[in-house]
Amino acid sequence: MTIPYLAKGFRYAGLHCGIRPDPERRDLALIVSDVPAAAAGVFTQNRVRAAPVRLCQERLPSDEVRGIVICSGNANACTGPRGLEDARTMTAVAAQAIGCRPEQMLVCSTGVIGRPLPMPQIENGIRAAAARLADTPAAFDDVAHAILTTDTRLKTATRQIDLDGVAVRLTGLAKGAAMIGPNLATMLAFVCSDAAISAADLAVIARRAAEQTFNCISVEGHTSTNDTLILLANGASVRQRAGSTGDSLSVANASDSSRLAAAVTEVCGELARAIAADAEGATHLITIEVEGLRDDREAYRVAKTVAESALVKTALHGADPNWGRIVSAAGYAGVEFEEEHLSLWLGDLLLYHAGVPQPFDVSTASAYLKREHEVHLRLRFTLGPGRCTFWTCDLTQEYVRLNAEYTT
Amino acid sequence: MTIPYLAKGFRYAGLHCGIRPDPERRDLALIVSDVPAAAAGVFTQNRVRAAPVRLCQERLPSDEVRGIVICSGNANACTGPRGLEDARTMTAVAAQAIGCRPEQMLVCSTGVIGRPLPMPQIENGIRAAAARLADTPAAFDDVAHAILTTDTRLKTATRQIDLDGVAVRLTGLAKGAAMIGPNLATMLAFVCSDAAISAADLAVIARRAAEQTFNCISVEGHTSTNDTLILLANGASVRQRAGSTGDSLSVANASDSSRLAAAVTEVCGELARAIAADAEGATHLITIEVEGLRDDREAYRVAKTVAESALVKTALHGADPNWGRIVSAAGYAGVEFEEEHLSLWLGDLLLYHAGVPQPFDVSTASAYLKREHEVHLRLRFTLGPGRCTFWTCDLTQEYVRLNAEYTT
Repeated sequence: MTIPYLAKGFRYAGLHCGIRPDPERRDLALIVSDVPAAAAGVFTQNRVRAAPVRLCQERLPSDEVRGIVICSGNANACTGPRGLEDARTMTAVAAQAIGCRPEQMLVCSTGVIGRPLPMPQIENGIRAAAARLADTPAAFDDVAHAILTTDTRLKTATRQIDLDGVAVRLTGLAKGAAMIGPNLATMLAFVCSDAAISAADLAVIARRAAEQTFNCISVEGHTSTNDTLILLANGASVRQRAGSTGDSLSVANASDSSRLAAAVTEVCGELARAIAADAEGATHLITIEVEGLRDDREAYRVAKTVAESALVKTALHGADPNWGRIVSAAGYAGVEFEEEHLSLWLGDLLLYHAGVPQPFDVSTASAYLKREHEVHLRLRFTLGPGRCTFWTCDLTQEYVRLNAEYTT
Repeated sequence: MTIPYLAKGFRYAGLHCGIRPDPERRDLALIVSDVPAAAAGVFTQNRVRAAPVRLCQERLPSDEVRGIVICSGNANACTGPRGLEDARTMTAVAAQAIGCRPEQMLVCSTGVIGRPLPMPQIENGIRAAAARLADTPAAFDDVAHAILTTDTRLKTATRQIDLDGVAVRLTGLAKGAAMIGPNLATMLAFVCSDAAISAADLAVIARRAAEQTFNCISVEGHTSTNDTLILLANGASVRQRAGSTGDSLSVANASDSSRLAAAVTEVCGELARAIAADAEGATHLITIEVEGLRDDREAYRVAKTVAESALVKTALHGADPNWGRIVSAAGYAGVEFEEEHLSLWLGDLLLYHAGVPQPFDVSTASAYLKREHEVHLRLRFTLGPGRCTFWTCDLTQEYVRLNAEYTT
């Protein structure tokens, strides 16, 4: 794995601690900032929230965060009071190992729901991870592996931008695979930056970025109990230049702030698309562009409804240009329109224009679906400026097999 | 097929007219009342409504309906102005053949979206069907076959009730299979009764029955463009006894009316469960009982969300008692609750009690799922009297195969 830009002032460690049976599978990770970092999060809107989500929500936003401890293979969700105690213990053990207060540590978990964590293995694992923290690509790679569950590929995205003559780096990583339904964040995603910014400002950036990225993907619409996006910004970019610390380092002007926000959104978008493309069993990444509705919210509802239709997803899997399923999915999105307001393209092919089916070559459409891993649907309405871009994947027999055989 | 109770005063015909290539597949049907019948319908809430749905909505409720012409294999949906003209022509040809005004005929279609109807074949088929109308079980059986698409079983339900000393019969039939998402009605369902009742009263009964039955099933949540429930009541039960006609025959008192409504709901419920059980690729009928929420609407939202989770449906298919998926689906239904308000049973097994996972024998739970075709989930909340019973099916590789290979 190549990591073009590793944010400065962060160290990483990932290892196998014993949550998973396979000793080759890393299942515990630490991300640590050398100095207290601004931190903000966006979390699942599920009423059933995992213990680590509750704990992070208690502690964020904060300007004092030193790091995150993450385990995979067990979600620590639906685990009652014991689950919350275990999550607190994870942060306490990590804090002791790196030398900070427990409240300065965050915690995330992903995996099976409803099982107690194997705490002895996890506590030993945290101490072992703390002992090998490093700011190297190899250590980052260990973390990116350790957070995966049924993902088949690593998901990372980085950017470097120039803010007032200072190079600022963003280093993002995520995991996805299934139980992906957009509702303010999805599964686990982390963006570390050496930008200097307050937690309050970072919280605004996080929420906006999530709305345009993680909230615009869906595998099967099942919002997880553990969805988490955490942004850390430790100011190391400025500190290295000036050798100083303190509030004066914060991103000063509106222009810099909006450029940082745009870069965060870019990193989150790249991670979100990677999650949709690597969904369980998926063979196609499907990009749905909806435009011309009264507002973005309406466009989002139509895009999400099309994205979550099992009939649309199976048709695209089967390379079947069955456009009636797409039009009819738009029709039950709860958005008012008449058929004559809608036109539909599959790639470059116009299939439906202003409510009237268009003659098209089925074999050309089918060949496009068979050939391309990335498929584009465009739904154009004539009702206003609202638009949305949404990413999903096809529904395959392999998805069903994986999720029927997944053991509790 | 045995039909315990055929409503009096109706005749039926079903045959192959040529919409489908297979000459053995019946694809056209007529249901005709000997005298003008009260008729009411409940239709899809999809913004994209098929031409026959638009036409029925124009004409209902009505006290003058003589019959319904139905074709399968082509939905006549997303077919523009030509589709509406074709639907009108179907009713006109049928009306001429049986001797009534076009406005007294209704029309329904089901099948592929976006293709023009083969009108010459359909017009010939309607005339041939009119010539062989009969009030026999065999003729009814032809109709029940002719409305099917990917259904593997006939779906019929009948009742006989006594109203004020008069035997009243209800004869219901339906088709389902896929694109089943509850939104006021689903696919095609018809209930013929010889009760004497006004169209206005029948419309109230139809809507209430749909809410508790067809609106409480889902295969994949994709609301069709063609969903239609039509009730016909021709008063033949009373007319046979008294030899009279006219408004005086209407169901007279509140008690009779509510017993008729209950019987209609029973017939619709039986048809709705049959649709869920015979969904494409399904191997389990899943009954979801939700109780203890603030009102029935909240219970409905939780039940529907659990029913439409691909992760819940694949787990049950795989005989995997992965209850975390059920609890987490309830959590994103948009209903406010805390985990401690919720307990969950799978069949008789308590899996989750007041927010705390319960020890249970996984092999017993798995054996229950493997053994039973009909599976029960019970979610009990402690927040009020609201309740809902909802039916769905599992999600199988066969569903994906069928819908990936379905040709446009």
